[in-house]
Amino acid sequence: MGICDEATRRAAWWTGIIEPDDPYAHALRLALGDERARRWAQAPEPGPLPDSLTGPGRDWAGAWARWHPRCSGWDVDAELEGAERRGIRVVARDDPEWPEALDLLGAHAPAALWVRGRIPRRPSVSIVGARAATQAGIRTARDLAFELSDRGRVVVSGGAFGIDIAAHRGALDAGAPTVAVMAGGLANPYPKAHVDDFTRIVDSGGALVSEVPPSWRPAAWRFLGRNRVIAAWGAGTVVVEAGERSGALATARRALDLGRPVGAVPGPLSSHASKGCHALMRNGAELIRDADDVVEMIDPIGAGAQGALFSSPVEEDHGAHALEAGQRRVWEALPVRARAGLSALARSSGLSEREVLVALAGLELAGWVVSDSSGWRRRRVA
Amino acid sequence: MGICDEATRRAAWWTGIIEPDDPYAHALRLALGDERARRWAQAPEPGPLPDSLTGPGRDWAGAWARWHPRCSGWDVDAELEGAERRGIRVVARDDPEWPEALDLLGAHAPAALWVRGRIPRRPSVSIVGARAATQAGIRTARDLAFELSDRGRVVVSGGAFGIDIAAHRGALDAGAPTVAVMAGGLANPYPKAHVDDFTRIVDSGGALVSEVPPSWRPAAWRFLGRNRVIAAWGAGTVVVEAGERSGALATARRALDLGRPVGAVPGPLSSHASKGCHALMRNGAELIRDADDVVEMIDPIGAGAQGALFSSPVEEDHGAHALEAGQRRVWEALPVRARAGLSALARSSGLSEREVLVALAGLELAGWVVSDSSGWRRRRVA
Repeated sequence: MGICDEATRRAAWWTGIIEPDDPYAHALRLALGDERARRWAQAPEPGPLPDSLTGPGRDWAGAWARWHPRCSGWDVDAELEGAERRGIRVVARDDPEWPEALDLLGAHAPAALWVRGRIPRRPSVSIVGARAATQAGIRTARDLAFELSDRGRVVVSGGAFGIDIAAHRGALDAGAPTVAVMAGGLANPYPKAHVDDFTRIVDSGGALVSEVPPSWRPAAWRFLGRNRVIAAWGAGTVVVEAGERSGALATARRALDLGRPVGAVPGPLSSHASKGCHALMRNGAELIRDADDVVEMIDPIGAGAQGALFSSPVEEDHGAHALEAGQRRVWEALPVRARAGLSALARSSGLSEREVLVALAGLELAGWVVSDSSGWRRRRVA
Repeated sequence: MGICDEATRRAAWWTGIIEPDDPYAHALRLALGDERARRWAQAPEPGPLPDSLTGPGRDWAGAWARWHPRCSGWDVDAELEGAERRGIRVVARDDPEWPEALDLLGAHAPAALWVRGRIPRRPSVSIVGARAATQAGIRTARDLAFELSDRGRVVVSGGAFGIDIAAHRGALDAGAPTVAVMAGGLANPYPKAHVDDFTRIVDSGGALVSEVPPSWRPAAWRFLGRNRVIAAWGAGTVVVEAGERSGALATARRALDLGRPVGAVPGPLSSHASKGCHALMRNGAELIRDADDVVEMIDPIGAGAQGALFSSPVEEDHGAHALEAGQRRVWEALPVRARAGLSALARSSGLSEREVLVALAGLELAGWVVSDSSGWRRRRVA
């Protein structure tokens, strides 16, 4: 090793086993710890699990079947060494550099992040939009990013053609750090046409980020998973242009589901590149004209508000035998029709915040609770 | 005489005395009846008034001072005769042709309407916008009006250059009636450039409408008063294009104040003609892309819902000496933080609906209550 500490290496191992947005891994790692979770996946058949993880609707055999074949071919140390030569590091959840905003994803948070550059510790806003953007849209994205950077916001986007890269360039114009969340691995960041921009992003104090190992390709299905990271990362998401089936709309919907404010820029009625934005504005998105509107949209929530919900350290060991009862206690502590935060749940259940987190992960996996920016709430009646 | 009945003539008389949007006349006429109210204005000095009308904050001397000078020069019969030669009639509030939607204006409703053509008895939608419209805006206004007419909605607008006339023309294209609410008198409808359109409007079963006598000019201050009539008439108001200080925004704000839904059409960020629309969408207006969006916006309220609040006949005579007590009873019957409808107020106050209406007019005039599409509510704590 030497490249990173053992805890980080264990988290990195998981990025080569799962596809993005696989909540089973999060639950298993939280319940068993990374090392025991790894052994469960590597075992020749799915082993027994704590009661907290099992139950109706949970397909652990399916998870094992997805993960196990990858365990033998995956050499995390070789990947880490290759990454180091390219200036790529792993940031795990307990790293101070980890973006707390991603904890909003709950069990759907990335297993770890592969990072080239440095993740800025500042309030962020996500700016996304169509690849097939108009000149007006590209100018708007660049202007918005420039002015938001000027106001101290980190612009987060996906590095793609059109609106995405225009947003990164606006931040770079302002001499500000910006974060590009990539769907593929960082060894060959996609698209190649933006390789100079990607270098500038790293050189300007920002970061290229991916939740898949550096050598992985940006397969089509990984873009959807990537979008959720962008949706969670920004305190708000702005869609500058989007056609009716643009992937940017998926990002926006993900952000709305997470309780993040979403804004959209209007355009000519006749422009196909604005139809998605107009539809969004009829479904909860705010109309955005300039950076002031974006700041007004995201300020009521604030940059660090979500983080506080998740601020207690997550330890690796726990008393698994007690958890079924723990889940019941946390479930009962959840209000019937409102949200609750971590500390409130710990108080009312009489459990430690760590125990509540473990119980919530199991409950979330089973579809009993969902989390958003305001905390956790019941999803269905017991 | 002979031209119209005496009640209509009495209402018409008031249109030559007051400026549009003078709530004192409404209150006086409701309390005293048109004939006694006229005598009060004609008297050489402001006479005594029922207690229901007087009280702190009410400036009856000011009202008398506004009205009295006009009483001597105003020959309603000559005006009615001149109007008849031009095919112009008077529609008063108790006329079946009276648009019930205007009763939403409460004490701010027109004293009577001068009408050329015929007021369609169908659900209406107001379409307004900038005089300095773009070609795209003009096309959108015409298309919206055409399709809404096709769906049986009467398009109401102001006959002005730009968006207004485009909306009327869209309705005419569909062979549908449309209503132009004019700020000046109907003898010389403004602007002259649209005289052929105005003729087509009348010939197509629609109407030119004004609350000022036919011979009056469209003075600048009358446009604001006119806007409130357009705002109340449509079950919803759509702003197609509006600069940042467009009069169309005043119409939209009036509609919002009345509880009417307001829609706005988006446009390019760079277009000055869309800045007002974008601001409106950040302040309660819905984004409108097409006629379907307009129908969806106005349908939850429905065409006749407001009318029902005001459906009881307003009689001319009443026991004025009992009214101060009546106002107190109605005030007490009003919920502290909610709205109440007419029949609910009648039930809880133990007064007839007519008595409640009279009391409400006095309370509204004094600023104690306000009305909107949901009924009346307290404006300040007693």
